[in-house]
Amino acid sequence: MIPVFTHYLIDRFDFTTEEVNPVIDYFKEERLNKGDYLLREGEVCKSIAFLIEGAFIYFENVEGEEKVLDFAFEHDWASQINSMINVVPSALNIRALEDCQILRISVTDLEIVKAKIPKVSILQARILEAHYVKANTRLFNMAHLSAKERYKKEVIETPELLQRVPQYYLASYLGIKPQSLSRIRAEND
Amino acid sequence: MIPVFTHYLIDRFDFTTEEVNPVIDYFKEERLNKGDYLLREGEVCKSIAFLIEGAFIYFENVEGEEKVLDFAFEHDWASQINSMINVVPSALNIRALEDCQILRISVTDLEIVKAKIPKVSILQARILEAHYVKANTRLFNMAHLSAKERYKKEVIETPELLQRVPQYYLASYLGIKPQSLSRIRAEND
Repeated sequence: MIPVFTHYLIDRFDFTTEEVNPVIDYFKEERLNKGDYLLREGEVCKSIAFLIEGAFIYFENVEGEEKVLDFAFEHDWASQINSMINVVPSALNIRALEDCQILRISVTDLEIVKAKIPKVSILQARILEAHYVKANTRLFNMAHLSAKERYKKEVIETPELLQRVPQYYLASYLGIKPQSLSRIRAEND
Repeated sequence: MIPVFTHYLIDRFDFTTEEVNPVIDYFKEERLNKGDYLLREGEVCKSIAFLIEGAFIYFENVEGEEKVLDFAFEHDWASQINSMINVVPSALNIRALEDCQILRISVTDLEIVKAKIPKVSILQARILEAHYVKANTRLFNMAHLSAKERYKKEVIETPELLQRVPQYYLASYLGIKPQSLSRIRAEND
């Protein structure tokens, strides 16, 4: 797993080899089976995971139904920001949608490594900015595009959604009924 | 305007008096009339504004219609992150919804002041986190709540929406038709 992460830090965030090694030392390799939880609702989020392989689903349980907020795929970071920052129980669950290989760092160690290697703070800011921009784009599309238009945009931008996400969860993510998604797919795929 | 901002930095972000003054020196006081633009679509966002008094509306022009993404009120920060970070033309407009008093800092000066006063970087990270959490909450509500439920939640959390935002723009922000909003308000207010 380490070579993938090294590559990511050097290529995407201009880390030098000297900066990479002390950062990597704070991350632990873990494997999760499909269905395992990275975070359960009610828990406080105390770590951040870098996804080497696999996929996560973010969802809330509402009256027995799993309502989807988001997905994460390879080279995404997974955590629950609100819970982590404000040290409050998470309303969201983060669960492995496939078998996953991750690198995980505790919030405590993240602070240590940020103090040692300032570039980690920049990386963290860039990741948050990218997530914020994506959330705002989805929000705008959700308010102003039809279900069909949203489906097309999301699937073009993130083809993994079609290839790796069960239809039921994809419909929930798009904020539409599974039968509406079936109809849209029949017309467009 | 300065005392309000000083108060904000000290109370909300634990700035000391010594830290506040060099920060304030980089901000310029400005007044915008209702209808003035803080940022127009197609421009690159090169500054961030702290809103002392007034309100902004964030919207895109889509085929002659103003489609609303967000609003900002007193003590919010206004900028267009995607345009600022990636130095690309903004798709969004930011316009004064009321007469506004702002404190504005250029992106260049922001970098200088962050190097001088590290607490400014922390402030910036906290603001972005809060905006991200809010965007995700709205996104979840948009996908999984009815228009009526969304209206109730948004109006309870941000009463300014009812008091200061024209009904047409509020409907657009909620992703519903103006006549649906009228019906919901008739039933709930």
